[in-house]
Amino acid sequence: MMNEKRIVVLRLGHRPERDKRITTHVCLVARAFGAEGVYISGIRDESIKQKMENIIKNWGGKFWIEFIDNPLNLVKNWKKSGGVVVHLTMYGIPISKIIDKIPKDKEILVIVGSEKVPKEYYYESDYNIAIGNQPHSEVSALAIFLDRITNGAWEYLKFPNAKLLIVPSEKGKKVIRISE
Amino acid sequence: MMNEKRIVVLRLGHRPERDKRITTHVCLVARAFGAEGVYISGIRDESIKQKMENIIKNWGGKFWIEFIDNPLNLVKNWKKSGGVVVHLTMYGIPISKIIDKIPKDKEILVIVGSEKVPKEYYYESDYNIAIGNQPHSEVSALAIFLDRITNGAWEYLKFPNAKLLIVPSEKGKKVIRISE
Repeated sequence: MMNEKRIVVLRLGHRPERDKRITTHVCLVARAFGAEGVYISGIRDESIKQKMENIIKNWGGKFWIEFIDNPLNLVKNWKKSGGVVVHLTMYGIPISKIIDKIPKDKEILVIVGSEKVPKEYYYESDYNIAIGNQPHSEVSALAIFLDRITNGAWEYLKFPNAKLLIVPSEKGKKVIRISE
Repeated sequence: MMNEKRIVVLRLGHRPERDKRITTHVCLVARAFGAEGVYISGIRDESIKQKMENIIKNWGGKFWIEFIDNPLNLVKNWKKSGGVVVHLTMYGIPISKIIDKIPKDKEILVIVGSEKVPKEYYYESDYNIAIGNQPHSEVSALAIFLDRITNGAWEYLKFPNAKLLIVPSEKGKKVIRISE
């Protein structure tokens, strides 16, 4: 349903000492809300990749992480090959005003920055989108964007080859472990 | 519009060395998406409060942070005084199945945990709600919950006494500084 078009995330400027958990949460959100994978620029941090590989091993799906050295090239190539580039920034146009303009049939690259995003990304992006014009978090911004662009379809995603499956419960925790 | 009822967040079990940025992002999301304030339990961490005071000074609003020693008492008292307690957990009932059951006219306490939430909170909460049954982030879970419970009204929130105001722009950054 929602995998008609690819959605990929670009996490800019990762700094391991400062961003480890935030970037991990960005990756977890990307996976849980239906993105295919995350490109990470900045300082290479294998611990993020290991963490996500553990998640995939237990919870399934085909998510990937890739470190890249030239994120601006990725953005330019994404557009050249017909994709749309969206940059989430509090300085952008409020999502409710712009969501319907994003082509429904094109592959989407979603950029989320860390502290300061170079201005080239504002200019190269097709859409600079604000999830509200107040400071909050790239983690929440990504979740709300993916929610809107998929019309909430993330809630019904299936993750093949999971070893762990949650049985939703009113109180407490129910987890099924699937043996092979 | 959305301030008919109070929404307050309880962040459980803050550990400064590990959670500093995640708890800060939880607080930023709480503010940006219309909660009134955040109670934080765990180890007292004044840097979170300072960070949020700076945000409020620049971006306005009446948000507050309060450290508490006995969060379970807070939960029990919240219920005694007629409020509703919601716990966000991947083990809970999917939000789409439960959102309409939450009373619209009661004050809501939203619990977000860190690594492991004691089982008392599952039992004391009126609703254990999953923002999807996949691992992601308390930051994104809180954002999606507040989005759903306010019907997206956070996008139109006003923050009185702001010194900084963003003028949404298609490219780049436009910020107005309001002098007194």
